[in-house]
Amino acid sequence: MVPAVWKSCTIALFLLLLFGDTPVRGQSPVALNVMPLPAQFELGSGSLKIDGGFTYAFAGFRDARLERAGQGFLATLSEQTGIVFGHSPADPAKTALLITTDHDSKPVQELGEDESYTLEVSSSGAKLHAATTLGTLHGLATFLQLVSVSADGFAATAVSIQDQPRFPWRGLMIDVARHFIPLKVIERNLDGLEAVKMNVFHWHLSDNEGFRVESKKFPKLQEFGSDGQFYTQEEIREVLAYARDRGIRVVPEFDMPGHSTAWFVGYPEYASGSGPYQLERKWGVFDPAMDPTNEKTYKFLNEFLGEMAKLFPDQYLHIGGDEVNGKEWDANPKIQEFMKAHNIKDNVALQAYFSQRVQEIVVKHGKTPIGWDEILVPGVSNNIVIHSWRGTEALATAAKQGYRGILSNGYYIDLGWSAARHYEVDPMGGAAANLTREEKERILGGEATMWSEYVNWENIDSRVWPRTAAIAERYWSPQNTTDIASMYLRMEAESTRLAWLGLTHRSYQRPMVLRMAGSAPAAQVEALLEIAEALEPVKDYNREATPGEEPTSLKPLNRMVDAVHPESEVSRQFSLSVDQFVAGSCKNPALAAALRARLTKWAAIDGQVQPLAQNSILVKDAAAASAAFSQAAEIALTAVDRIAEGLPLPDALKKQQTDALAAFETEAHKSTLTIPSLAAFQKLVDASGTGGACSAAK
Amino acid sequence: MVPAVWKSCTIALFLLLLFGDTPVRGQSPVALNVMPLPAQFELGSGSLKIDGGFTYAFAGFRDARLERAGQGFLATLSEQTGIVFGHSPADPAKTALLITTDHDSKPVQELGEDESYTLEVSSSGAKLHAATTLGTLHGLATFLQLVSVSADGFAATAVSIQDQPRFPWRGLMIDVARHFIPLKVIERNLDGLEAVKMNVFHWHLSDNEGFRVESKKFPKLQEFGSDGQFYTQEEIREVLAYARDRGIRVVPEFDMPGHSTAWFVGYPEYASGSGPYQLERKWGVFDPAMDPTNEKTYKFLNEFLGEMAKLFPDQYLHIGGDEVNGKEWDANPKIQEFMKAHNIKDNVALQAYFSQRVQEIVVKHGKTPIGWDEILVPGVSNNIVIHSWRGTEALATAAKQGYRGILSNGYYIDLGWSAARHYEVDPMGGAAANLTREEKERILGGEATMWSEYVNWENIDSRVWPRTAAIAERYWSPQNTTDIASMYLRMEAESTRLAWLGLTHRSYQRPMVLRMAGSAPAAQVEALLEIAEALEPVKDYNREATPGEEPTSLKPLNRMVDAVHPESEVSRQFSLSVDQFVAGSCKNPALAAALRARLTKWAAIDGQVQPLAQNSILVKDAAAASAAFSQAAEIALTAVDRIAEGLPLPDALKKQQTDALAAFETEAHKSTLTIPSLAAFQKLVDASGTGGACSAAK
Repeated sequence: MVPAVWKSCTIALFLLLLFGDTPVRGQSPVALNVMPLPAQFELGSGSLKIDGGFTYAFAGFRDARLERAGQGFLATLSEQTGIVFGHSPADPAKTALLITTDHDSKPVQELGEDESYTLEVSSSGAKLHAATTLGTLHGLATFLQLVSVSADGFAATAVSIQDQPRFPWRGLMIDVARHFIPLKVIERNLDGLEAVKMNVFHWHLSDNEGFRVESKKFPKLQEFGSDGQFYTQEEIREVLAYARDRGIRVVPEFDMPGHSTAWFVGYPEYASGSGPYQLERKWGVFDPAMDPTNEKTYKFLNEFLGEMAKLFPDQYLHIGGDEVNGKEWDANPKIQEFMKAHNIKDNVALQAYFSQRVQEIVVKHGKTPIGWDEILVPGVSNNIVIHSWRGTEALATAAKQGYRGILSNGYYIDLGWSAARHYEVDPMGGAAANLTREEKERILGGEATMWSEYVNWENIDSRVWPRTAAIAERYWSPQNTTDIASMYLRMEAESTRLAWLGLTHRSYQRPMVLRMAGSAPAAQVEALLEIAEALEPVKDYNREATPGEEPTSLKPLNRMVDAVHPESEVSRQFSLSVDQFVAGSCKNPALAAALRARLTKWAAIDGQVQPLAQNSILVKDAAAASAAFSQAAEIALTAVDRIAEGLPLPDALKKQQTDALAAFETEAHKSTLTIPSLAAFQKLVDASGTGGACSAAK
Repeated sequence: MVPAVWKSCTIALFLLLLFGDTPVRGQSPVALNVMPLPAQFELGSGSLKIDGGFTYAFAGFRDARLERAGQGFLATLSEQTGIVFGHSPADPAKTALLITTDHDSKPVQELGEDESYTLEVSSSGAKLHAATTLGTLHGLATFLQLVSVSADGFAATAVSIQDQPRFPWRGLMIDVARHFIPLKVIERNLDGLEAVKMNVFHWHLSDNEGFRVESKKFPKLQEFGSDGQFYTQEEIREVLAYARDRGIRVVPEFDMPGHSTAWFVGYPEYASGSGPYQLERKWGVFDPAMDPTNEKTYKFLNEFLGEMAKLFPDQYLHIGGDEVNGKEWDANPKIQEFMKAHNIKDNVALQAYFSQRVQEIVVKHGKTPIGWDEILVPGVSNNIVIHSWRGTEALATAAKQGYRGILSNGYYIDLGWSAARHYEVDPMGGAAANLTREEKERILGGEATMWSEYVNWENIDSRVWPRTAAIAERYWSPQNTTDIASMYLRMEAESTRLAWLGLTHRSYQRPMVLRMAGSAPAAQVEALLEIAEALEPVKDYNREATPGEEPTSLKPLNRMVDAVHPESEVSRQFSLSVDQFVAGSCKNPALAAALRARLTKWAAIDGQVQPLAQNSILVKDAAAASAAFSQAAEIALTAVDRIAEGLPLPDALKKQQTDALAAFETEAHKSTLTIPSLAAFQKLVDASGTGGACSAAK
């Protein structure tokens, strides 16, 4: 076996077979088209043919869950390949894939169970072996990734894999409060998590904008707190079973004492203000907070959390705890009186008091509390888990104090960052790198967080996928798995496979663009589709900071900013080509021609988009970005010509163009969009300033 | 009110607003973007704003079905627009859309019920009125089609509509025997039927390749006849309810005495041969047929049809009756003896005897038999309905004899014809045009037929839609609604709307192409996507006639022929541009440039596809067509240049190129594909022969 530092492997022939002329695209090759990359693997020779005669069989432990896993595996393999497989499970002695599981995983999936598996694939057959069902599920996911089409038909790469996760807590959080996310969307995202071996679905079920769970004890929670958009307990049990079948724990979150306006619409008596309360339609930190000084609050929480502790079987229960501004506490004389009487010196201490009480309730109901950074206060029990939105510094500090933690800072997928940027964040990075071995073991993993201010049923998949696959690799694969080019190649391949699971991260865009275009002529529609592929939403929290934007949860998400990919693959490819070009390939006429063709197209887009912006309110919003983009592309096009011809750009003109490019980005922001190719455009301008490599070579 | 002969309308301003520069594309404008076009309409001024405050309310009759219809209407409107609507139904006095229904439709939907409605939309509000719930459903479908995006937001066109169908029987048949079609695919196709006002779903439930219904009385039918792929009675009841909610009758078909091999796998005793029988994997006319001389056959059919008559509430029950080759009858001495004894002179007479007996059983169970042409034999009861695969001649003959009939000849959507070709077929055309008024009334309508030899869950939507929308218009709209250009414009708009219902007729293609491409570089994938958009499957029954093809129901449908659209919109647009160009617009530099750009792209495709064909077995199959297509495009490109420059093509060269183009089509057929732009290429060659209009103008 070779370690997974495959960068140095000499497997040129294999790569050639796999990727044809890919290296022209300026990316490094991949050894194994699997994501997350296994802990250890060794490539074999040949491959295992996959045709209509392919079969699998179980040996060792087997139960209904494994049967379903087998059927699901075959159904996905059928979608991936288009092949119709036979319906009867095969004879273990003669099967193509023999699946041996030693024993079942725990009845309620636990943190830190054995998830390892080995998978041996050769031209004569495949063997999957795992200690528990969890490992079997992961091995099946890997097998699906090994299957690709070749000149002879479909086949699974011959390989020997020994695999296990780096971190035991690998999660995705979905906020269903700001925008309600329907059950079927949740379920297909669980399919996605299974495919990339994530094992935690953190369900952010309540916030100021909505309370999304049916409580039978306190029905006014959902009746008044959800606009009718909530999950019934029956639906939740469906999701729990669905997740268990996929090796995924479900951790529910009830955020308190802040982020809780939605609770108070039905039950204002537990708030610190005088009410009445209405659902928030905007987002941010609001004043309403639970009353920590009212014993009835704890009585209510005891009953409510008791109900939820029964509904959700997982050991962990997330109690939120973030972002309390304390204004309602300051304004309430009774609370102030209580604080004085109990020697509680400030709001931080008051929240610590509340947090302590709630944690006791959670523990009483047999659960382990997890909460955001704020719950870590002096003296709090070591049993809790810290969920860090603050960062590795906070996490490391907690670990030193004996607290376990998971990291989400750096994995906020709502911020529109590139996959590479998330990929570079490591739960064991920063201050955590200097921890002792024992302290390091307290860092359990991380969670990608899908806050839902700007996502709904229609575009959420595109914000989660494929970037979450890269984050999943960070949590699963060895720490030295860091090659960005390899990550992107494998992520794009995984993206294609994820589409077979019904995820809409690729298919969502075209209908949204057609909606924007209305009955526009084909050329205008095509231009709009080009824009949608090439631009990105503004990053971080710049959308709500844009003048004219007044985001609320009722405002339609039907504009260009909602339709563009968080990371434009077209622009990424373009930027790679530019890097090649300015690095000395400017004499490559095919490359120059490809850049020219792309830039010519981009430069022409705005001529089509502006008339459309006159006819559609949804396009109007993107008009500023469209104009800026086409003009910027025009500058880049001129630069390509100069570089190819070795004509240096005069300094004054260079400065003018540099300023212009910067101004175009500002223009694009007016449309709440960014131009991700702008850095590449600037590189072209910079290179044309020197006359470029072609000039030097002359 | 003006009649629907809208071609002569002078509504230039309206069109300009609606379609921008569309006329450049060489198509005639449309008066109202609705399909099927209403019987009568008059455009108003302005439009009704559709924003988050839009509401509807019911007046008159109301029940749970109407409530569901209202909710479904609003959900679709929300998908179309991206707008979040309020959740409470509005006050009738203040609502934007007031829906008045006089009374419910029949408890079991009947042939010929009142389906009319009126819809008045003005800038101040809309009123929908219908005699029955069926009309209300149609009116809501129309309203959804009136909504489009404008510079001010979404709005419904102001219009006054009086609408009713031309024919009472407007159907789609889906064959679920050759390939099983899952329930959810059936249901989304019912959504599509509702959108275009079709009212019959004809469910072809049994054939040689599969028996797809659970029989509780004869469970071996599905156990042995379906590979486990059948609908339970509970699932069927779900579909029946789903269809009823959408104003659609469900007519089940049990094809007999031929096309029945699947029955005999479990029950060989009712066959005319000695068995044992296995499911057919190929298609065509096979020997197995029921034994018409065995009384037990009728006892069995009596019990079975009795069970099905209870399961399916519709008045009509389809008994098939087509294509019996009689070989098993000829070979069975007992049957020959019976024929002699009963003076049955030939197999036609024997089938007539069988048919008569089965019809009696159907009638006994309270149903009206419908069957293919073959059931019309001298002396058969006038109560039956003839379903004609033979054509209008047969239908007219039947009508003269007093039989009612529906037409499917000309509506075989499995044959890959253009929408225009189906659109030109009229149930009242051909011999039917000369019938008396009374005879004409016996022609009830028609059905598009989706035979499933080459469709499965993945591509069936693309074979049904959008072309079935054009057929739906033929059945619904006045006979003089025949403008092809208008039809295409409205069909494409409807195609976009149909995608919001979850139909995959547009989104299916990209995943299939990515599957074919495997890990190929982006340029190769793009070329393959271009091919997929530009080519079409071979037409009629030429696929199975292609050397090397051995189609069976187990063979994957994962090649290019399965992924291309039956009618390429890209090629159709290209052909329209060529028509413009050769008709005298060759001096239009933008048009010439657009043609050149398109042809240059097409000519370059094969350079990308051939390397891919080396690496993927799925692409290999398309290599011949790819090469032919690019070479043909190269010829057309040269022709464009010659025409633009006014350089006449020498006759010898012209002949050479004409021959080459014909040969390329033959080449493409080797890939079971056709090049739909070939006629346009030939037009360019022909025009370049004369030097074209540009030459003449010089």
